[in-house]
Amino acid sequence: MTCGTHTKLAVLSSLLASSTLLAASPKTLGFFPSSRESEARFEAIMSATPTPERERKWLRWLTEEPHTAGTGQGKKTAEYVRDRLKEFGIVAELVPYEVFLNYPKQVSLRLLKPEPIELSLEERGDIRDKDSFSGDVFPGFHGYGASGKAAAQVIYVNYGTREDFEQLDGLGLSVVGKIALVRYGKVFRGLKVREAQERGAIGVIIFSDPADDGYMKGDVYPDGPMRPETALQRGSVQFLSEGPGDPTTPGWASVQGARRADATKLAGIPRIPSLPISYGEASKILKALAGQRVPEGWQGGLPFSYHVGPGPAEVEMSVTMDYAYRTIWNVIGTISGGVEKDRWVILGNHRDAWVYGAVDPNSGTASLLETARGLGEAMKAGWVPRRTLILASWDAEEYGLVGSTEWVEDHAAELSQKAVAYINLDSSVTGHALDAGGIPSLRDLFMGAAADVADVRTGKTVLDLWTQSEQSEWAKEAPVDLEHPQREFYPNLRLIGSGSDYTAFLDNLGIPALDFSFDGPYGVYHSVFDDITWMEKFGDPEYLYHVAASRLYGLLAMRLAGADLVPLRYVPYARRLQDDLDEIRRSAIIKRRMPRTPSSPAVKPPLDPDFTTVIESLRDFVTAAGELDDALDRVDSSGMADSGRLSRLNDSVARIEREFLDPAGLPRRPWFKHTIVAPGYTVGYGAWTFPGIVHALLDRDQAMFDAEAKKVAARLHAAASAARAAAALCGAP
Amino acid sequence: MTCGTHTKLAVLSSLLASSTLLAASPKTLGFFPSSRESEARFEAIMSATPTPERERKWLRWLTEEPHTAGTGQGKKTAEYVRDRLKEFGIVAELVPYEVFLNYPKQVSLRLLKPEPIELSLEERGDIRDKDSFSGDVFPGFHGYGASGKAAAQVIYVNYGTREDFEQLDGLGLSVVGKIALVRYGKVFRGLKVREAQERGAIGVIIFSDPADDGYMKGDVYPDGPMRPETALQRGSVQFLSEGPGDPTTPGWASVQGARRADATKLAGIPRIPSLPISYGEASKILKALAGQRVPEGWQGGLPFSYHVGPGPAEVEMSVTMDYAYRTIWNVIGTISGGVEKDRWVILGNHRDAWVYGAVDPNSGTASLLETARGLGEAMKAGWVPRRTLILASWDAEEYGLVGSTEWVEDHAAELSQKAVAYINLDSSVTGHALDAGGIPSLRDLFMGAAADVADVRTGKTVLDLWTQSEQSEWAKEAPVDLEHPQREFYPNLRLIGSGSDYTAFLDNLGIPALDFSFDGPYGVYHSVFDDITWMEKFGDPEYLYHVAASRLYGLLAMRLAGADLVPLRYVPYARRLQDDLDEIRRSAIIKRRMPRTPSSPAVKPPLDPDFTTVIESLRDFVTAAGELDDALDRVDSSGMADSGRLSRLNDSVARIEREFLDPAGLPRRPWFKHTIVAPGYTVGYGAWTFPGIVHALLDRDQAMFDAEAKKVAARLHAAASAARAAAALCGAP
Repeated sequence: MTCGTHTKLAVLSSLLASSTLLAASPKTLGFFPSSRESEARFEAIMSATPTPERERKWLRWLTEEPHTAGTGQGKKTAEYVRDRLKEFGIVAELVPYEVFLNYPKQVSLRLLKPEPIELSLEERGDIRDKDSFSGDVFPGFHGYGASGKAAAQVIYVNYGTREDFEQLDGLGLSVVGKIALVRYGKVFRGLKVREAQERGAIGVIIFSDPADDGYMKGDVYPDGPMRPETALQRGSVQFLSEGPGDPTTPGWASVQGARRADATKLAGIPRIPSLPISYGEASKILKALAGQRVPEGWQGGLPFSYHVGPGPAEVEMSVTMDYAYRTIWNVIGTISGGVEKDRWVILGNHRDAWVYGAVDPNSGTASLLETARGLGEAMKAGWVPRRTLILASWDAEEYGLVGSTEWVEDHAAELSQKAVAYINLDSSVTGHALDAGGIPSLRDLFMGAAADVADVRTGKTVLDLWTQSEQSEWAKEAPVDLEHPQREFYPNLRLIGSGSDYTAFLDNLGIPALDFSFDGPYGVYHSVFDDITWMEKFGDPEYLYHVAASRLYGLLAMRLAGADLVPLRYVPYARRLQDDLDEIRRSAIIKRRMPRTPSSPAVKPPLDPDFTTVIESLRDFVTAAGELDDALDRVDSSGMADSGRLSRLNDSVARIEREFLDPAGLPRRPWFKHTIVAPGYTVGYGAWTFPGIVHALLDRDQAMFDAEAKKVAARLHAAASAARAAAALCGAP
Repeated sequence: MTCGTHTKLAVLSSLLASSTLLAASPKTLGFFPSSRESEARFEAIMSATPTPERERKWLRWLTEEPHTAGTGQGKKTAEYVRDRLKEFGIVAELVPYEVFLNYPKQVSLRLLKPEPIELSLEERGDIRDKDSFSGDVFPGFHGYGASGKAAAQVIYVNYGTREDFEQLDGLGLSVVGKIALVRYGKVFRGLKVREAQERGAIGVIIFSDPADDGYMKGDVYPDGPMRPETALQRGSVQFLSEGPGDPTTPGWASVQGARRADATKLAGIPRIPSLPISYGEASKILKALAGQRVPEGWQGGLPFSYHVGPGPAEVEMSVTMDYAYRTIWNVIGTISGGVEKDRWVILGNHRDAWVYGAVDPNSGTASLLETARGLGEAMKAGWVPRRTLILASWDAEEYGLVGSTEWVEDHAAELSQKAVAYINLDSSVTGHALDAGGIPSLRDLFMGAAADVADVRTGKTVLDLWTQSEQSEWAKEAPVDLEHPQREFYPNLRLIGSGSDYTAFLDNLGIPALDFSFDGPYGVYHSVFDDITWMEKFGDPEYLYHVAASRLYGLLAMRLAGADLVPLRYVPYARRLQDDLDEIRRSAIIKRRMPRTPSSPAVKPPLDPDFTTVIESLRDFVTAAGELDDALDRVDSSGMADSGRLSRLNDSVARIEREFLDPAGLPRRPWFKHTIVAPGYTVGYGAWTFPGIVHALLDRDQAMFDAEAKKVAARLHAAASAARAAAALCGAP
């Protein structure tokens, strides 16, 4: 038996296992027998449309010049995308917002001691890549970074995570009055600055270590896809885990004339200056640090032993930002639904880039355009989706998901009522490996669509390869239970945190969201080398994976918008929550069994948490999810003649996610309303499942734990009730 | 409650938990109430004897010049140690063997392509360390390495483990006709050469990567303790896991006139040439390798992206060895026992070094000498141990445990009958962290002794710190059982594989063995920089841990030799076996749940092993161990008047270990008779618990698994019977 067949059988069997009845084929999830044939026909038209030539054409145009949000070139790309959508037969318009954005007016960094050296914040293009040259490239700076000057000793704090700063405490060292030098990785860069600022640092320098995305991961550009010593990573330093979007309008939309928070006292962005640098430059500072040898795990890839400092290295940093209210441009395209016009399925990709953005994000923009062209072809052939499909091209994502967040806040009430799901595509391609994260109620839909997209390189489907890779990870990492060793692999979506435009949809409004990409070695993130030459040398020389992304995106859109019955399933969701809760419980146990160290007395002891109510409420949700999925499978295969009841059922199924919202929001971040998933408060990108509980365990705060556990239990019971109500609408078996 | 107290209480409570009765205090394990006072008095005399000044004096003398086995200086160190023992009042003699040893006559290594460069095999001393200079230092070569010439393309195979070579197969590459470049680490160096040779390589170069013991682990010598770019690691390339000792006398002693295997067709040592090199030199080869980017985990610490090759780098290696029968000199000291003169407790440390050997092994030699001086002082005060104590200073350990193995083979019958335990001390000090491995029946004795040795730096005992560190490891790594989360930490000895002189005692004869050291960052292993200046800059500047090692060694010796009742306990042994069996079962499950990869069809599927008989027989041993330990505790506290019965009981208790021997030995290595523990066949240093079973799982050989499982089960039942017989000798409760 080949491994492909083997894996596919395993997948199917576990899909089947999610129900006590024979489930509908994942391919036709939500489609009644009477709709399947026409759906297949229109899908075939869409799938046949995207071509490598067109993918390249869009990418070439979009990435000719830097197009940071708020710039003239930024607007030109918006017009270009709008015009393409119109060409494809899709109604499209520009939707502007006035948002607070910064560009660098002046930035400089000097090593003062042991010897004065000017450190470069410019990225030079490479002579072997003419696309990496332009007169309009900003030097190294941080979106939403603070203006300011600082001159002080340097102290190295590894990745600048909370754990790293705590470990620094354990060494008897502090960043008070120092400039923290931290490396990129592990957590969102803004949270590195927040940790440093909260602990008294007066400036932060963030460098790209060769161990993380440089030569230790592969050959460096232009010989390979990884980061060369001159490349630096721009990016936002917003405190993303506290809330995305324009910091002058936290929780409401930046429409013209909107009320604004005092721009001199904004929450959620740094007060101390920060700068990104390359490892070529960082090495000059790091080499000049003495003091203690770094703790385990802090050594990077530069060829000398790292030391923590502080000093003798001293640096002077100077940052003057040009902050202003600037116009950003979302593009919103609409394909109106034929039956449930007031129900929306939203697709979104951002368009703004730190420089050329051939990967991030315009590989995704090219894919989105080819998807749109495919949908346009299907429309020409007579396709009308049941629900309205919205295609969004977001602006200013790089500053903090600004375009999408402002749009969501602008249409919050309508979205709460109308939205069925949001499918995000940021960078679509850096390689061959399909990666998918999202709300697991979308798992079966995702797997069904991925089963219908070929991996041209191998002749398998992208689902086969995804499943095999997930199974390898699972095999290596999942705990082994000697009493029940035969536990089966259950492919699932990992939950998503933040770092792209699904955030406002999912975390603020409770709209199920999915995000995917084809991944490979990629070290030029947010540098000038993220250009079309990189893509054509390394990422996707033949644009085959751009095409695969367009097809997958299109299938997801057509099935979500076209299905008679909303194609969500809740057993995968319940299983994901069970697995994640087990993991949280395991990690709480591990914390408690660590011996207390000499520095421990100052630290609160880990909690001995009681998970009973959460376990019981999750059990309730598990049971209800099973009942609902069975009922939905029955409706899928038998159809439902009563269209009014079907609409009510669709609303019930789509809105179960909303039950997880709590109007008061999460501890220390009220904008985040989802009690089941959120970006980790100290992580930013990565998700925390049961975020209030995890936050309480991290802070060792018993009162917070009790409150959050109670809240989670209530929301799980509510979702279980909603699922039972939906199941009841399906009728008796 | 301070953590020290906390930890100590935990330790005591788990010691107590090992018995249903109140156990004897670990301090007095095996001593009847009537003996305890005098024992304490003599122990105090021994403990007070070792001083930093004397430790330094011995180390200074021993490490003045290189003293490789078989050289004139080697003999001088033997005479020195013998004379010191005599000075301390201990009967001592030189015990020579004639063994086959090699020195390098001519070695050279040249890069031929892309450009011809001569690569250095000399280590230069460092100008800041005059002790690193001598005219008698051998260039880089391997003990038991083959003579030969090879010129070929180079291929990089990571650590050269079996898994690495299998991964190379997976890349579609082969070492046939190539020179394999591998880095030190993970497995014994001889097994790297064996793997390469078996797969068709014509030469092997082994380099020290800076990621493993160079700058990525800390500052390099002389600024820090880690390996500088000019340092290389000498060492033996014997196929250690197949059997140690003189390869011309496999299984018998190299006494004068002994029968010899044909020196041109020796098993267990390489036929292809190999050389060790520094990373300064290796970098010139590695940089010139093209081909595929290395797989994950293969990148080392040199500042460029590693490639597998083969080529374009080509090297020419030339090795001419001067092999001859040479005389080596063990020193055997004896303190005769007063009651059970014909029962032996053996202490041993090797004395030969690749160069100066200030750490390896003469830190241990200094400690052994100070232990001996302490025992001498106790003897002067009237101490006579119950059993005979033998103090051994082994020669030619570096070539393959030759001195100890030949001595054990020379006295095999006598040792089988008389030996109670063997306590090894190789390098005693590279830092502060006590590390201990051994047969867990010695756990309680070890913990009791360690509880009586102070850690001068912290004011705690070395037991406290060991326990805390073990608990941290356990906390991080032990699987969490959500059903039984309260599983307690149970400090234990890890089982020992090979790489030092306990091997023949334990693996060939079934004598319980223990090995310990105080560890810290140490990157100059087997280089010229392992000298007294390194020790005084980094390892133990005040010789405090040399003293601690002497005290611990002395306490272990006095208690083992002096106890009325042999101080072994079998519940810790049973628990270790349970834990390890669980781990083996887990790892078999993980292997089975991995998806099969495209290259899999060529590879045999992993076994689905049935552990039932092993689990059942282990349960029998667990029960018997509990019964025996209870009975021994009772005898400890009440004493035993019948001296004949006590001697029979002592023999019964000491010989349980022998029940684990199988005369046929292990698969592919008949010299290894112990069915429960052995050095990993593909590992060398590290231990495999249930080695036959692990071997079968690795080879995916069902017939081997069945045979080995049966053998193990039989041995466990036999040991359980022996334990019950011993318990019966204790009398009724």
